[in-house]
Amino acid sequence: MLKGVAASPGIAIGKVFLYTKEKAEINMKNIDESKVEYEIERFKKALEVTKEQIQKIKEDALKEFGKDKAEIFEAHLMLASDPELIEGVENMIKTELITADNAVNKVIEQNASVMESLNDEYLKERAVDLRDVGSRIINNLLGVKSVNLSELDEQVVVIAKDLTPSDTATMKKEMVLGFATDVGGRTSHTAIMARSLEIPAVVGLGNVTSQVNNGDTIIVDGLEGVVIVNPDENTINEYKAKKENYDKKVEKLKKLKDLPAITPDGKKVMLAANIGTPKDVKSALANGAEGVGLFRTEFLYMDRTTLPTEEEQFEAYKEVAEKMEGRPVTIRTLDIGGDKELPYLDMPKEMNPFLGYRAIRLCLDRTDIFKTQLRAILRASAYGNIHIMYPMISSVEDVRKANTVLNEVKAELDKEGIKYDKNIKVGIMVEIPSAAITADILAKEVDFFSIGTNDLCQYTLAVDRMNEHVKDYYQPFNPAILRLIKLVIDAAHKEGKFAAMCGEMAGDPLATVILLGLGLDEFSMSATSIPTVKNIIRNVEYERAKEIAERVLNIAEAEKIQKMMEDIIKDIE
Amino acid sequence: MLKGVAASPGIAIGKVFLYTKEKAEINMKNIDESKVEYEIERFKKALEVTKEQIQKIKEDALKEFGKDKAEIFEAHLMLASDPELIEGVENMIKTELITADNAVNKVIEQNASVMESLNDEYLKERAVDLRDVGSRIINNLLGVKSVNLSELDEQVVVIAKDLTPSDTATMKKEMVLGFATDVGGRTSHTAIMARSLEIPAVVGLGNVTSQVNNGDTIIVDGLEGVVIVNPDENTINEYKAKKENYDKKVEKLKKLKDLPAITPDGKKVMLAANIGTPKDVKSALANGAEGVGLFRTEFLYMDRTTLPTEEEQFEAYKEVAEKMEGRPVTIRTLDIGGDKELPYLDMPKEMNPFLGYRAIRLCLDRTDIFKTQLRAILRASAYGNIHIMYPMISSVEDVRKANTVLNEVKAELDKEGIKYDKNIKVGIMVEIPSAAITADILAKEVDFFSIGTNDLCQYTLAVDRMNEHVKDYYQPFNPAILRLIKLVIDAAHKEGKFAAMCGEMAGDPLATVILLGLGLDEFSMSATSIPTVKNIIRNVEYERAKEIAERVLNIAEAEKIQKMMEDIIKDIE
Repeated sequence: MLKGVAASPGIAIGKVFLYTKEKAEINMKNIDESKVEYEIERFKKALEVTKEQIQKIKEDALKEFGKDKAEIFEAHLMLASDPELIEGVENMIKTELITADNAVNKVIEQNASVMESLNDEYLKERAVDLRDVGSRIINNLLGVKSVNLSELDEQVVVIAKDLTPSDTATMKKEMVLGFATDVGGRTSHTAIMARSLEIPAVVGLGNVTSQVNNGDTIIVDGLEGVVIVNPDENTINEYKAKKENYDKKVEKLKKLKDLPAITPDGKKVMLAANIGTPKDVKSALANGAEGVGLFRTEFLYMDRTTLPTEEEQFEAYKEVAEKMEGRPVTIRTLDIGGDKELPYLDMPKEMNPFLGYRAIRLCLDRTDIFKTQLRAILRASAYGNIHIMYPMISSVEDVRKANTVLNEVKAELDKEGIKYDKNIKVGIMVEIPSAAITADILAKEVDFFSIGTNDLCQYTLAVDRMNEHVKDYYQPFNPAILRLIKLVIDAAHKEGKFAAMCGEMAGDPLATVILLGLGLDEFSMSATSIPTVKNIIRNVEYERAKEIAERVLNIAEAEKIQKMMEDIIKDIE
Repeated sequence: MLKGVAASPGIAIGKVFLYTKEKAEINMKNIDESKVEYEIERFKKALEVTKEQIQKIKEDALKEFGKDKAEIFEAHLMLASDPELIEGVENMIKTELITADNAVNKVIEQNASVMESLNDEYLKERAVDLRDVGSRIINNLLGVKSVNLSELDEQVVVIAKDLTPSDTATMKKEMVLGFATDVGGRTSHTAIMARSLEIPAVVGLGNVTSQVNNGDTIIVDGLEGVVIVNPDENTINEYKAKKENYDKKVEKLKKLKDLPAITPDGKKVMLAANIGTPKDVKSALANGAEGVGLFRTEFLYMDRTTLPTEEEQFEAYKEVAEKMEGRPVTIRTLDIGGDKELPYLDMPKEMNPFLGYRAIRLCLDRTDIFKTQLRAILRASAYGNIHIMYPMISSVEDVRKANTVLNEVKAELDKEGIKYDKNIKVGIMVEIPSAAITADILAKEVDFFSIGTNDLCQYTLAVDRMNEHVKDYYQPFNPAILRLIKLVIDAAHKEGKFAAMCGEMAGDPLATVILLGLGLDEFSMSATSIPTVKNIIRNVEYERAKEIAERVLNIAEAEKIQKMMEDIIKDIE
């Protein structure tokens, strides 16, 4: 039994297909100067073959997985056509007198390792893509036939070091029962792909590839993050039951998609999705989201060398507003800083970035950036039901300053005769303790609150939850957090405003009943959590939820509260 | 007019004494191998002379300034006797064939610049000491007579690049009206010395030495951090009035020393001192402290290579307990981590140290360290009125875990028959928002609270106040902070416990009336702030303070509150 990261839920039981790629042997010898032209020619030809292959995969992926996944290969095509890459390889062949395969390997490695070193999830994934393209070119240079998962002729569990976008795109998905890989985390390509394909997966197992043989029986438990090699019959039966149970639950949840989130005694709440790019709208709608409670706009600013233009932003916001067809879309203004840096902004190095220059603080300082975004949002508001939300508000002065800028932008648009939603709702993230504690003051100045529980917990408990050494001190069920949530909801309602939540707690089944009982109006979460939360809401009386919330507020220990909620949820599910 | 750092309060008006030290000209030529012995002899003789000089200064300093200041020269003597230093110089003469003065200069510079680079205030000051000793040796080698401030024959304002411990120790202090220096900050030697001598001083002026001549008239305003060279008559008169006003106020405050901190309508509170080492007790008592509200114990752990023994700690705690003669002494258990690191503990590098592994979190993990400290504190409790205080408490679980360790230690002492105060009071710092919000829960588990406003503000407002880019977001008068303070005080009183405060706010005159009105029982602050705070308390009716506190709690903007308090205080002072 091996322990890894639960990357995609569900249970797979089946035969091992050990997917180890033949590693092309690179020719490290120096070449004679007279061979330079020949090597460059070889490289160019291999590049052409590579591009044709990727084009083919792209077309297959489009048919099999749709536009989103095919775009990965559009990116691969661009990488394979990148003039800097091509020039880099050619120069290296010329100046270092090495073979084309050696040069490709070196250039790709240099670029990929720089990307990896920048400690950014997105760039890490791009490094995977780059290596994927690189090994394809090298295989073509050396005549190594790329192994792939397109020829599986029986149902198997795929065991690999890692899976690349090419692997998953060419894979015959009906033959794959589950994945288990040596490397990767919850946001790695393999994990994302597995969740999108609804294939159980465990990643980050360390060295599963060296512990299994082709044909072994294996259990992949994507719920617990566990893999069992050659289990005994009892274990197999146990997991078969677990699998059946899980699959039934999934079936049941899928049927909830178009039903409202309403308690048996008639209390209705809104379930919305958090999204990171316009592409995520599809999954939001597929999971029954009634709105977007948090549209993070950072994707527009990242992985580039300059600020996004008003037009680029406008297009993205408009796309989401239109696709959501009148459902509310809450756009959070730029929340950069903290752990998210933009190299081109030349931001200060900080000792405690979480307590520093970020989000609204940056926007109120760099009003040029802020105004461009607000213009784009306001313009897009003519095409749907958009709300504006400011992050990292710590005082009433912050809200007023931000609104002053917003009013300037509105006046500009009025002058230019550009249309926008004149009644656009403006709210704030409540994620700094001071904002929660003074929610009564702030409620008078905004249209809505959205509680950001991740940061709120971090600040209220003085814990960086990414810090391994103190992660046990991160207690979302600490009574202080629950009291702050109650304060915020009550303050909003007193002024006739609505209270939403877009932190992780909103999608945590253990918190659903408490939040319902406290009167939360909108739960916004990652789309795939919506069915589970909806199921709970549809199965608990509002009156009971209120009682439970009240009881919980009088318990001193976070752990006790969590245990109690686990018991309550077991009955409901 | 030049702007610098206000280092010591008060106004000085007088004639410039430009104190520029003759820089000894080091002989950079190489020496012949036959001269090596001669140079080493020269070095040894100079070292002897140097030690005699320092010994003499030390004795003078003892007479003039007392034991504390004389200890600086004890440290200088040790530096001058350091075998590593001596060997280093001798080796350098031998291997590099250079003069003794050149070798001393090089060795000292190497060591001093390493100390400076470590970004530690303490080591930076030791670098100053080392250079002081070094230039004394070099002067003796080259026959340059050390200039000093012992021969002043009229009252002057001393203008210098910086002042060394030797300078201030040999200075004829009755002739010095004020200091103004090019370099230094609020914690530099010059600044500390000036405050201790009650001489007005402005430091960090950049280049005041190049902008004045001997005999110029100069005003040093240590209240505002301003220096005016050759002012006109109007300005002189204006500053004379300001000086008279300030001096009168100081006189008045000094008279308060032995009077209680009681309002005209009879509400008494306790004013205590925050101390960092046993040496600070003297100043605490001199300023009328009725107790030590915060004894920081980090000094025992810093500037060394191993953990302090139980015995060392016991001696330090006992010394303070005894010197305070029965007045309460609140000892805070180790608050290391965050910005305070101990190299020998091999602590993790953290992305957000303020939200990380520090204080009680470290102690609950490293119970060996914690137990040693608790044993030492308990043993010392037999010699005075000691309280124990845990820092960085975020939940009731933290308190219980800490108390479990404390009870284990008590049981050990009982078993060994070692006496300690069986009724020792145990309290917590309230500096994490969750602790303030759940103060009602925590009040049942502790004997007292002490509100740490510096950290409480940082976490509640999500601001690192040391971060230049966001320092304006650090608002101690944000209504959220004031509400939390009220919560904590009310929760303590409801359980019959007392509420103290040991953050900077406790010594901020603008906060005094509010805190008094909110019912704070104990104000603990740096000793020199006590008279000012006492003066306010003795001049404001408790009933009025309560009204003001209530009014303030209903104001939304921190800035408005601060303005209002400025007006109120003006009337009282």
